[in-house]
Amino acid sequence: MVNYQQRLGRTFAALVDPTRRAILARLEREDGASVTELAAPFAIKLPAVMKHLDVLDDAGLITRSKRGRTVTVRLSPEPMREAMNWLRRYERFWSGSLDRLAAYAESKEAEARKRR
Amino acid sequence: MVNYQQRLGRTFAALVDPTRRAILARLEREDGASVTELAAPFAIKLPAVMKHLDVLDDAGLITRSKRGRTVTVRLSPEPMREAMNWLRRYERFWSGSLDRLAAYAESKEAEARKRR
Repeated sequence: MVNYQQRLGRTFAALVDPTRRAILARLEREDGASVTELAAPFAIKLPAVMKHLDVLDDAGLITRSKRGRTVTVRLSPEPMREAMNWLRRYERFWSGSLDRLAAYAESKEAEARKRR
Repeated sequence: MVNYQQRLGRTFAALVDPTRRAILARLEREDGASVTELAAPFAIKLPAVMKHLDVLDDAGLITRSKRGRTVTVRLSPEPMREAMNWLRRYERFWSGSLDRLAAYAESKEAEARKRR
């Protein structure tokens, strides 16, 4: 059994590589692509692409299905939901930054008033 | 100059390790902590914690300031904003999943009606 922390680590590790992020971004736009189609935009060789797909598959971010000689790759975005929810707790730091700046300015003003 | 893709990769790489995630989570709750305080909950030795702090610092996720003999570590969450925005594009897959299920059911029904 892989626990929550292990899953998070595996998801983030899968997202470190720009080629893997590009593959996920493409699968976000297209509902399924063959391995050859996925490999086409990259300068790297097919076995290297296959290795990236293995990493994405191990992280549960894609599924692969074979029909005849064609392997179709599809997005399996659920692990990214968990990663996003982990990041979400920091959201208040940026979404509230203007509010906090205003509050800070006000407190400084109040301080200055007291000093007079 | 580090570009967008490099920054994303560095942020995700920093988030792979559970100790580093725990440090960030603690700094989210506390506004600044000393290195000794940060190291206390972990079974690993201080130099290992320092290495994790170096990774977080290189990724721009923390700042360190020294006063006398105490180094205070603070959260610098901005890089996580970029990471979250990258993940956000997949949000429709889960937030819209019920809508899409309904749409799918409807299209299947329409197909079945046509066939009759």
